[in-house]
Amino acid sequence: MKVIVDLCVVPLGVGVSVSPHVAACQRVLEEAGLEHRMHAYGTNIEGEWDEVFGAIKRCHQVVHEMGAPRITTTLKLGTRIDREQSMDDKVESVRRLLES
Amino acid sequence: MKVIVDLCVVPLGVGVSVSPHVAACQRVLEEAGLEHRMHAYGTNIEGEWDEVFGAIKRCHQVVHEMGAPRITTTLKLGTRIDREQSMDDKVESVRRLLES
Amino acid sequence: MKVIVDLCVVPLGVGVSVSPHVAACQRVLEEAGLEHRMHAYGTNIEGEWDEVFGAIKRCHQVVHEMGAPRITTTLKLGTRIDREQSMDDKVESVRRLLES
Amino acid sequence: MKVIVDLCVVPLGVGVSVSPHVAACQRVLEEAGLEHRMHAYGTNIEGEWDEVFGAIKRCHQVVHEMGAPRITTTLKLGTRIDREQSMDDKVESVRRLLES
Repeated sequence: MKVIVDLCVVPLGVGVSVSPHVAACQRVLEEAGLEHRMHAYGTNIEGEWDEVFGAIKRCHQVVHEMGAPRITTTLKLGTRIDREQSMDDKVESVRRLLES
Repeated sequence: MKVIVDLCVVPLGVGVSVSPHVAACQRVLEEAGLEHRMHAYGTNIEGEWDEVFGAIKRCHQVVHEMGAPRITTTLKLGTRIDREQSMDDKVESVRRLLES
Repeated sequence: MKVIVDLCVVPLGVGVSVSPHVAACQRVLEEAGLEHRMHAYGTNIEGEWDEVFGAIKRCHQVVHEMGAPRITTTLKLGTRIDREQSMDDKVESVRRLLES
Repeated sequence: MKVIVDLCVVPLGVGVSVSPHVAACQRVLEEAGLEHRMHAYGTNIEGEWDEVFGAIKRCHQVVHEMGAPRITTTLKLGTRIDREQSMDDKVESVRRLLES
């Protein structure tokens, strides 16, 4: 089962700057070989369910290892069985409507 | 790794009434033997990471099998390594402050 | 326009214990006279759109006044125009299916 | 109070294709003159609290007017009082860490 995810990992107890932890998660996604795109409030990821959720678990482990005692993550996740749809397809279908 | 999750599964392409799909997910959590509590906009779940995420994957499979061509799920998930904390502990610590 | 909301306010830069800030938000909702119910990962609220969002803004102001330099909030919000539905109705319709 | 938001509006009861409704929301943000950037699972928006939430309310109104009987929206929203930070700043601070 393919899944498209939007991931936002928030470490607590590490002060206000969370960018080192977000960067560490980007590296986890990179190493996992998952298609991913960061935006200003999270990261879009696409891939097979087990690989994506394996990487998300690894993010929590890595962020705890960096010293964060607590993490709260927000996740959106989409699956569909009617047809294949990539992250780019989703953006493209809206863009086409806006231009027509 | 223990995790506390808030799960909200939304099937698309099945009309406006989603309660049969939500009920099916409750049964999945029940069968998985996971501590869970439904509220008006999702379900709190607590347990070991792999068991919780196994159940969430099973929810998507079951809801697709019921005929939903597309699903969008919102998830919050919390882990902490500084101390154990249950769902009840979280609510209780706020309640105590409100009563004092 | 009536709205049902699930609100989860997370202060950053205040350490790992966020219950005083969550309690302060409960008091804001109380003072606003809004129907609300806390769970282990947020609070369900129902009411008129402007009143609900006025209270959410007030939560951010109060939590900043308590000393939190940064806040990240997750919100789910539902509106419908086909029929009236309360928070209790939503839970009840799933419960009925589970018992039948 | 400045806010950075991640908005994901999901109409229910309109079938599986939601891109016309997402496109309509993009036009609402455009008309509101708000800085915004669409990604594969939502749209980042930045602006003054009241303007941003005025636009989000308008999105719900417009999507209902298009025929959606029910809408469920997921929102992340961040405020900070320690310093100014734009959407671009957030992405940039992570990028810098990844390149160093």
